Amino acid sequence: MAARTVLLTGSNRGIGLELVKQLLGSPRPPAWIFATCRDPEGPRAQELRELANKHPNLVLVKLDVSNPSAITEAAKIVEVKLNGLGLNLLINNAGIYTPTASLDTVDAEDMVRTYKTNAVGPMLMAQAFLPLLKKAAQESKAKGLSCSKAAIINISTVMGSIKKTTDSFSPPVISYRCSKAALNMLTMCQALTYGEAGILCVALHPGWVKTDMGTQQADLTVDTSVRGLLSVLPILSEKHSGTLLNWEGKAIPW
Amino acid sequence: MAARTVLLTGSNRGIGLELVKQLLGSPRPPAWIFATCRDPEGPRAQELRELANKHPNLVLVKLDVSNPSAITEAAKIVEVKLNGLGLNLLINNAGIYTPTASLDTVDAEDMVRTYKTNAVGPMLMAQAFLPLLKKAAQESKAKGLSCSKAAIINISTVMGSIKKTTDSFSPPVISYRCSKAALNMLTMCQALTYGEAGILCVALHPGWVKTDMGTQQADLTVDTSVRGLLSVLPILSEKHSGTLLNWEGKAIPW
Ligand SMILES: NC(=O)c1ccc[n+]([C@@H]2O[C@H](COP(=O)([O-])OP(=O)(O)OC[C@H]3O[C@@H](n4cnc5c(N)ncnc54)[C@H](OP(=O)(O)O)[C@@H]3O)[C@@H](O)[C@H]2O)c1
Ligand SMILES: NC(=O)c1ccc[n+]([C@@H]2O[C@H](COP(=O)([O-])OP(=O)(O)OC[C@H]3O[C@@H](n4cnc5c(N)ncnc54)[C@H](OP(=O)(O)O)[C@@H]3O)[C@@H](O)[C@H]2O)c1
Repeated sequence: MAARTVLLTGSNRGIGLELVKQLLGSPRPPAWIFATCRDPEGPRAQELRELANKHPNLVLVKLDVSNPSAITEAAKIVEVKLNGLGLNLLINNAGIYTPTASLDTVDAEDMVRTYKTNAVGPMLMAQAFLPLLKKAAQESKAKGLSCSKAAIINISTVMGSIKKTTDSFSPPVISYRCSKAALNMLTMCQALTYGEAGILCVALHPGWVKTDMGTQQADLTVDTSVRGLLSVLPILSEKHSGTLLNWEGKAIPW
Repeated sequence: MAARTVLLTGSNRGIGLELVKQLLGSPRPPAWIFATCRDPEGPRAQELRELANKHPNLVLVKLDVSNPSAITEAAKIVEVKLNGLGLNLLINNAGIYTPTASLDTVDAEDMVRTYKTNAVGPMLMAQAFLPLLKKAAQESKAKGLSCSKAAIINISTVMGSIKKTTDSFSPPVISYRCSKAALNMLTMCQALTYGEAGILCVALHPGWVKTDMGTQQADLTVDTSVRGLLSVLPILSEKHSGTLLNWEGKAIPW
């Protein structure tokens, strides 16, 4: 994967943290990794800070994806740091999940909170970082679309697939499923809108992963999931833009 | 269509008002039609009030679907009026649309406002009216699922189909598409949850209709669209629960 500049959300734990680690450890690590999280100074970002102490190409940036003004602030900081370079890869990874939300128990507040983080956040992130993504696309001489040129990766889930709901309805997690179906729609709209500017837009399902969200019952280690995701990124091209793929590159229906 | 008791949201204009009129004018009109709207006393409900003056089976109820406590209040009023009867048919018709919302212009506030009305509202409506829908299902001796037994109809749109987005992306209307993709997911989750209780759950696309929302450029008159919708309802059975159909009964992919 030849993305020289990468930005991720929710990078202090789970899949986000592992993405940072594996990107840093790759044969050709990015020139800049902007690892954003809600509280880079706090105890939940300790591992990320230790990594940043060892890796000068890793920059921690404070960013709460449910806070629109925090997003535009972060984009300004990243722009300054990039100093004229573009952003090749935006990974919208931050997400929340209410494990108990069945139709019996889900309420308006949970629906809206989950939507703000899982769907509105990725929409605002792409808006705020669009000038830097466009710059990366313009700088590239490559034809077509790719993650080494300019891409938005939305970390979605098979639980956002309406078609697959019957197979996966335990747990129901209504607020999560509705927010991720909306994120899938957003990904399609982003592909149709940003494709002209040379930006690839894909939704990826990481599998069921052993993280705080996935719990230790999950199928995959975070290492396996992230190895899969990072091996899918380099094969993505214009033909994948506006699709939902799993960590092995297989298409999931909407 | 043999639904004896029907409740609709957003029934003061557009498709909602026409549904009320055609239900009233049908050969076997429902025993009760609860036509809900935000302001039954105000100027925007004048036509509905005139209808209620002529039709004793038409009851106007104040209901803003973006207000959770207003929904539970309305459910109490309807329960009293039904006086032991169940509710056969809940039609979640109220919806909003921001015509100018492209990815360039859409903001968090529009995303959340549209989601609250178009997706969270229908979720809360079903929760609040569930006891009355269950009662109707229990009272019925019919096998399987049907609108004459107990049903939730969510008025959705082809614009909520991720698969069909490429064909319909002008106008982009991001906030609307994302909210309706979530409503489609909700419909599937409702079908899987409420099916056991004997409640059919279907999403219907009314076509592109000449209303305030659809504008006068639209394909269909509101009369044609509503005639179509009302002719689809009686053919719905358990095999349609958890699907999206258009006003002619044709399936639309997710
Ligand atoms: N694990 C699975 O099985 C699985 C399956 C399918 C999809 N996914 C998706 O994969 C992504 C990562 O999941 P995960 O398993 O790594 O979850 P996780 O272990 O719960 O971590 C979630 C991450 O998102 C961050 N986050 C939450 N809200 C945020 C906000 N408003 N602003 C910024 N960051 C925020 C968290 O930061 P804090 O520490 O500040 O809370 C944390 O870094 C999510 O989008 C999830 O939906 C996971
Ligand atoms: N027209 C089309 O081409 C088309 C196509 C596909 C789908 N649809 C769907 O069909 C449904 C009806 O659309 P329409 O064309 O009849 O739209 P419309 O003419 O704009 O009427 C919308 C109705 O929804 C009501 N409403 C909006 N927000 C509400 C709230 N928070 N609480 C209660 N009522 C609320 C409005 O009441 P107020 O008068 O108080 O605003 C009005 O009665 C919508 O769900 C729409 O998405 C329409």
